[in-house]
Amino acid sequence: MISKKMEPLVNNNSAIRAMFEEGLQMKKQFGAENVYDFSLGNPSVPAPAAVDHAIRAVLAEEDTLTVHGYMPNAGFEDVRAALAESLDRRFGMDYDAGDLIMVVGAASGLNILLKTILDPGDEVVTFAPYFVEYGAYVRNYDGVLRVVPPHAPDFQPDLEAFAGLLTEKTKAVIMNSPHNPTGVVYSEETLRRLAKILTDKEREIGHEIYLLSDEPYRELAYDGVNVPYVPWYYPDTIVCYSYSKSLSLPGERIGYVAVPKSVSDHDALIAAAVIANRVCGSVNAPSLMQRVLKRCLEEKTDVAVYDRNRRRLYEGLTQLGFECVRPEGAFYLWMKSPVEDEKAFVAAGKRYHILMVPGSSFACPGYVRLAYCVSYETIERSMPAFAELAKEYGL
Amino acid sequence: MISKKMEPLVNNNSAIRAMFEEGLQMKKQFGAENVYDFSLGNPSVPAPAAVDHAIRAVLAEEDTLTVHGYMPNAGFEDVRAALAESLDRRFGMDYDAGDLIMVVGAASGLNILLKTILDPGDEVVTFAPYFVEYGAYVRNYDGVLRVVPPHAPDFQPDLEAFAGLLTEKTKAVIMNSPHNPTGVVYSEETLRRLAKILTDKEREIGHEIYLLSDEPYRELAYDGVNVPYVPWYYPDTIVCYSYSKSLSLPGERIGYVAVPKSVSDHDALIAAAVIANRVCGSVNAPSLMQRVLKRCLEEKTDVAVYDRNRRRLYEGLTQLGFECVRPEGAFYLWMKSPVEDEKAFVAAGKRYHILMVPGSSFACPGYVRLAYCVSYETIERSMPAFAELAKEYGL
Repeated sequence: MISKKMEPLVNNNSAIRAMFEEGLQMKKQFGAENVYDFSLGNPSVPAPAAVDHAIRAVLAEEDTLTVHGYMPNAGFEDVRAALAESLDRRFGMDYDAGDLIMVVGAASGLNILLKTILDPGDEVVTFAPYFVEYGAYVRNYDGVLRVVPPHAPDFQPDLEAFAGLLTEKTKAVIMNSPHNPTGVVYSEETLRRLAKILTDKEREIGHEIYLLSDEPYRELAYDGVNVPYVPWYYPDTIVCYSYSKSLSLPGERIGYVAVPKSVSDHDALIAAAVIANRVCGSVNAPSLMQRVLKRCLEEKTDVAVYDRNRRRLYEGLTQLGFECVRPEGAFYLWMKSPVEDEKAFVAAGKRYHILMVPGSSFACPGYVRLAYCVSYETIERSMPAFAELAKEYGL
Repeated sequence: MISKKMEPLVNNNSAIRAMFEEGLQMKKQFGAENVYDFSLGNPSVPAPAAVDHAIRAVLAEEDTLTVHGYMPNAGFEDVRAALAESLDRRFGMDYDAGDLIMVVGAASGLNILLKTILDPGDEVVTFAPYFVEYGAYVRNYDGVLRVVPPHAPDFQPDLEAFAGLLTEKTKAVIMNSPHNPTGVVYSEETLRRLAKILTDKEREIGHEIYLLSDEPYRELAYDGVNVPYVPWYYPDTIVCYSYSKSLSLPGERIGYVAVPKSVSDHDALIAAAVIANRVCGSVNAPSLMQRVLKRCLEEKTDVAVYDRNRRRLYEGLTQLGFECVRPEGAFYLWMKSPVEDEKAFVAAGKRYHILMVPGSSFACPGYVRLAYCVSYETIERSMPAFAELAKEYGL
């Protein structure tokens, strides 16, 4: 009785679940501290203390019917106004409350935007490696995901291949920088070229191509790297943001969609997306967390913790002879498998109690992802295990 | 650039929005206290104090990474286990954690279930009058909503007409009791007959028909009326529950889906629904609210407040000569329009500053809905206005 569209998702999920169960089993068998689990992108830095302070303050100071009650489906007007002001100040934009929709995390934001713009058969382009659920999101609305092949070794997007994939049917492009799973930050030069290609194509095909910028990792950048603000480069950019990583609130499901005034069909698009937010079942972003957010707009997670992990892991692994992309953002290290079949390498890692995610899970075989949002001790303790693994592969 | 599927939703929404804007305008012009707004189903009773206490206790006592962090997409295991135990005790069920999925409200619960079971062209049956977004939910997954005509004057479902609408393509039925917009509670006798029809039809067509019981108003019943637990009567019942009304938390988006062990394809259905929860974009129910819920399972909103409103409004309006369905549950009064064109009646009401929702918005013209989740004073003050309105219609 399961829908035919759901069947492949269920089968694929069983594989991921099997991996997860295996990890649990290993932790039970060997003790959690003896398993080096780099498989999960769950923030290891707690939410800033200001978040819990703000929760208490909201409960103490604000009207309880408002705090827990319905508001317009786009979110509380005053929260959106404050957020707009903060974004305007940070990025020199001219957002106001009406340009923002509070959403149940970036995954929901992407879904309501795709629901809003896709007709069956419409195409969406993204860049491998990519978060595979993009495919499920696009197929939810009977769209077709076109994937630009990965561009080793720097993993900046392959823009020539990208240009070749754009067609009359292209309605949207999904980009993600800082990038899961590679840790790459798209450079200003990349964004300029990307924008030029899209603008030319828009003119050629006579309709808009929306660039959906999925930005949960925006605040996680290192070495002073600048994460350019995508709407500066391309007028039809829509930003999908989540506080899952920047405030370490992944379970709370709070984020926003920002539609700059430069976006084509701006008003109609926002009106439809707000309705999509309702009819897709989210209705609105959680109300208490919206109220809290208004008081935490200038808060950030402690990036120094991830940075320390990043350096230790990158240096440790490259010293052992592994080939890694030096991460500039997010909390992932992207490592080349010493053998073509990275699933075999992942399996070998497990024998040393190391859990990594195969690149195939991001449509990029031959690589593995290590999430370093773990304790520093886990990284330290994992090094001898990685040394054994390197030895096994003759590094 | 808006998807063709979204266009009718956008157009319809503009009408609702116009009504809402007109209400705002009236309140500005005449003062909020002089406008009798019965249009919104937003709880007027605050969340029990225990909810805010529980929020503070969770923050003080529980691990912050857990409180705000990811958990399995179905929800925290311990929260589901506690909820299962509470439901088992209340309803004599044998739920355990694995039978429950925490969701972003009942709207999200219905969406993920429909996503799970519907193939294009599959049919879902519901009973008029009904919450029109059921239609949008079903069309999200290319299903077809079949509507059983309303059954005046008692507005119990017309089960003969219902039986006639079931076909080989029927995958699900959506029912809602206590009922929006009529305030009717489906009787035990109704549920027995409904179950018999469905069971016979399942046998005839050779596949399951899931009965999706949308129950946000379960705890809101009056006059000692018993709200029968639907899974007792029909094994393929799936319950969609929300705490929006029972704990006055509509903005927080917290509810659950309960899949009794008797449901066909139980395990596959739950596995798929959990994936649907993720790929539809909700990912999981808000984490803090899940933790809070575990501490508030025995809490209830103060139904006496709604009951007092209900009596005053029902008695006041019937004394004036209006014909009303005596509400047994929820917080809606369903009133017959004195003229066939209830939209004209609603427009006339506005001249006396009375805001009501036309029955056409629930696929049942000739009636109007009054939401009495307002202050008692609003009801008191509205009575002279209703008296004028009655006079205008010669009552």
